[in-house]
Amino acid sequence: MRKVLAFDLGGTKFAFGVVNEDGSVLGSGRVETHAEKGPAQACDRVAAEAHKLLDELKLKPADFVAIGVASPGPLDISRGCVDGSPNLPGWTGYSITEALSKSFGGLPARIDNDCNAAALGEFRFGAGKGKKNVVYITVSTGIGGGAVIDGRLMRGSNGNAAELGHIPLTMDGPRCGCGNLGCWEVYASGTAIARRAREALAAGRTSSLTVLAGGAEHVTTHHILQAVAQGDALSKEIWEQSINYLGRGLGAVINTFNPDVIVVGGGVTAAGDTLFVPMRQSANSYAFPRLSAVCTIVPAGLGGNVGVVGAAACAFEHVG
Amino acid sequence: MRKVLAFDLGGTKFAFGVVNEDGSVLGSGRVETHAEKGPAQACDRVAAEAHKLLDELKLKPADFVAIGVASPGPLDISRGCVDGSPNLPGWTGYSITEALSKSFGGLPARIDNDCNAAALGEFRFGAGKGKKNVVYITVSTGIGGGAVIDGRLMRGSNGNAAELGHIPLTMDGPRCGCGNLGCWEVYASGTAIARRAREALAAGRTSSLTVLAGGAEHVTTHHILQAVAQGDALSKEIWEQSINYLGRGLGAVINTFNPDVIVVGGGVTAAGDTLFVPMRQSANSYAFPRLSAVCTIVPAGLGGNVGVVGAAACAFEHVG
Repeated sequence: MRKVLAFDLGGTKFAFGVVNEDGSVLGSGRVETHAEKGPAQACDRVAAEAHKLLDELKLKPADFVAIGVASPGPLDISRGCVDGSPNLPGWTGYSITEALSKSFGGLPARIDNDCNAAALGEFRFGAGKGKKNVVYITVSTGIGGGAVIDGRLMRGSNGNAAELGHIPLTMDGPRCGCGNLGCWEVYASGTAIARRAREALAAGRTSSLTVLAGGAEHVTTHHILQAVAQGDALSKEIWEQSINYLGRGLGAVINTFNPDVIVVGGGVTAAGDTLFVPMRQSANSYAFPRLSAVCTIVPAGLGGNVGVVGAAACAFEHVG
Repeated sequence: MRKVLAFDLGGTKFAFGVVNEDGSVLGSGRVETHAEKGPAQACDRVAAEAHKLLDELKLKPADFVAIGVASPGPLDISRGCVDGSPNLPGWTGYSITEALSKSFGGLPARIDNDCNAAALGEFRFGAGKGKKNVVYITVSTGIGGGAVIDGRLMRGSNGNAAELGHIPLTMDGPRCGCGNLGCWEVYASGTAIARRAREALAAGRTSSLTVLAGGAEHVTTHHILQAVAQGDALSKEIWEQSINYLGRGLGAVINTFNPDVIVVGGGVTAAGDTLFVPMRQSANSYAFPRLSAVCTIVPAGLGGNVGVVGAAACAFEHVG
C-alpha cells in the first residue's frame, strides 16, 4: 500500500507520522516546535526524529510517494511557507516543504492550512467518508473551518479559504482577533463561551462555577458543562446561548455550502450529545429546510490524529 | 462550433437562446411564463417559440449538444424540477428538463439554480473569465450568490448551494423571507436599501427623496442615488450604511471562499463607481488582508444575457 510522511506543525508541537493510503497510522511521534527559535531548527529536529521512526519501521524515503504538512495559516502554499502566522513568528518566507523534501530524498511535498487538511482528512478517512460535500468546523480556542466540495478540497486563490470562524453574527459585538466586531468565533468558540461566563460572574451573577473552577478567572467550558449537569442556572443560560450562536453559524454554513455533512471537532465537542443534540436542532432552525434535510452534523472521527492524517490526505491528493 | 439551447425561467418571463461554445448568442426570445397556469403550458409555449427561432436560424435539435435551464430555487436538480419556489406555485415535481428534452429530440438537459448558473456564466464567458475561483453576487430584490471553486460550479448536495444572501449580519435585525432575523439581504438588497429610506421618512426625517419619488412610498435605490448626487443628507446616510452592509457581507464572502474575483450584478450595480469604489474599500476592511489582496470586486460582464448565457454554461459543463 502507498504511504506518505505527514507532518502536523503547531506553535508548541511538531508532530509527524507514517500514514498508509487507507488512513491507518503505522507510526508517529512529535518534537517541541520551539517556534521562537525559527523554522530551520524545528524542521531539522522533526526530520531527525522522523528518520528514527523510518528506521524502526524499516522504511526509507523511496518507500513514500509524498510528504504532507498541515500548518496554521495564513500560508503561501505555492512556496510552502507560513505567511504571518501569529504563533510562528519569524517563520514567514521559510519553505517548510523544501526543507522537508530535502531531508527525505526529494519527495514531493505540499503544505496546507491545518483546518483545510483536517477537512480533507475527515472526508477521506474520518466522519465524512463516503460523502462528496463535507465541511469541517473546529470549535476550540477559535473557530476554524475547511470545506471539501464535490470531493475536492477548497483551497481558494492562495490556500486560505474557509475562514469560517469569521462569519459575522453581529456588527457591534465583541472585537475579534481579526479586527472585526461580532465574528462567529467571538461568540461561540470554547474561549468565547468561557469568557461570557466569566463576564457574567464579574457582573455579579452568582453560580457554582466559581467554586467548581477554583475562582471565576479559571472558568472553562469544562466547568460550565459540569455546572450545567448540576443544574446551575447561569451555566445553563450561557450554554443555551452558546448553542444558539453555534447554530446560527452552522445554519449559515449549511446555506453557503449545501453540504452532505458538517463534521465538528475541537475541545468543545467533548460535551457529546449535550452539545450535538441541541446544536443540530438550532442549526436546522436557521437553515433552509431543503438544505438542512440533506445535511447531518456529526462529531469528528479522527480525534487527536486529525493533524497528521489530514496532512497525509493532502499529500495523497497531491500525487493523485 | 458546438451549440446549446438555453432557457432562463423566471416567475414572469421564460427566455431562451441559442448559444455558441464561446458564449456568443446567435438568437434569443422570450414568452410570458404565466406561472400560475402551471409548468406544462409554459414549457410547451417556450418550446414552440424556440423551434421558430431554430427554423429562422436554419438549425435543428441535432445541431445542439445539450439543453440548459436556469431557474429560481430551490430545485431538485436530479429530477429537473423546481421544488417549492415561491414564484412558481404548482410547479413542484414537474420535470422541466424532461419536458424540454422531449421537445428537442431527446437532447440531454440539466437545470441549475439561476444564481449558480450566472456564476458559471460569468466564470466561463463574463467578468470572471480566466480566473479559477469566482463568486457571483446579485444585489437586486434580494441578494443571491453562486460560486465557482477551482473551475467547477459548487452545486452542493442537492443543487442549492451558495444561498449567500442569508449570511447573518445581526441576530436581531429585520426579519428575512427565510424566517431568520438579520440576514445580509434584509440590510443590503435593493429592496432593503429602499425600505430603510422609506422607514426613515416615515419616522419623520426630511429629504428631497419624497419629491423626487413622487411620495415616500415610491422611493427606490434609483431615487436614493439621484438624491445622493444632489447632496441630500438622508440619502447619503442611507447609501453609506448600505455600502457598509454590502462590505461586511462581501468581506465574509472573501474570508469564506478566498476567491480571485467577486462578480457583482443586479439592479443596484447600475450605480457604477458610486457603488464599486467605496464597496471594495468596505469589503477589504472586513476581510483578511492576505485574502482581500488577491481578490478583485468587479461588475458583472453578461448584463441582461446572464440568465440564458449562464444556463448555456451549465449545459456545456454538463456534456464536458
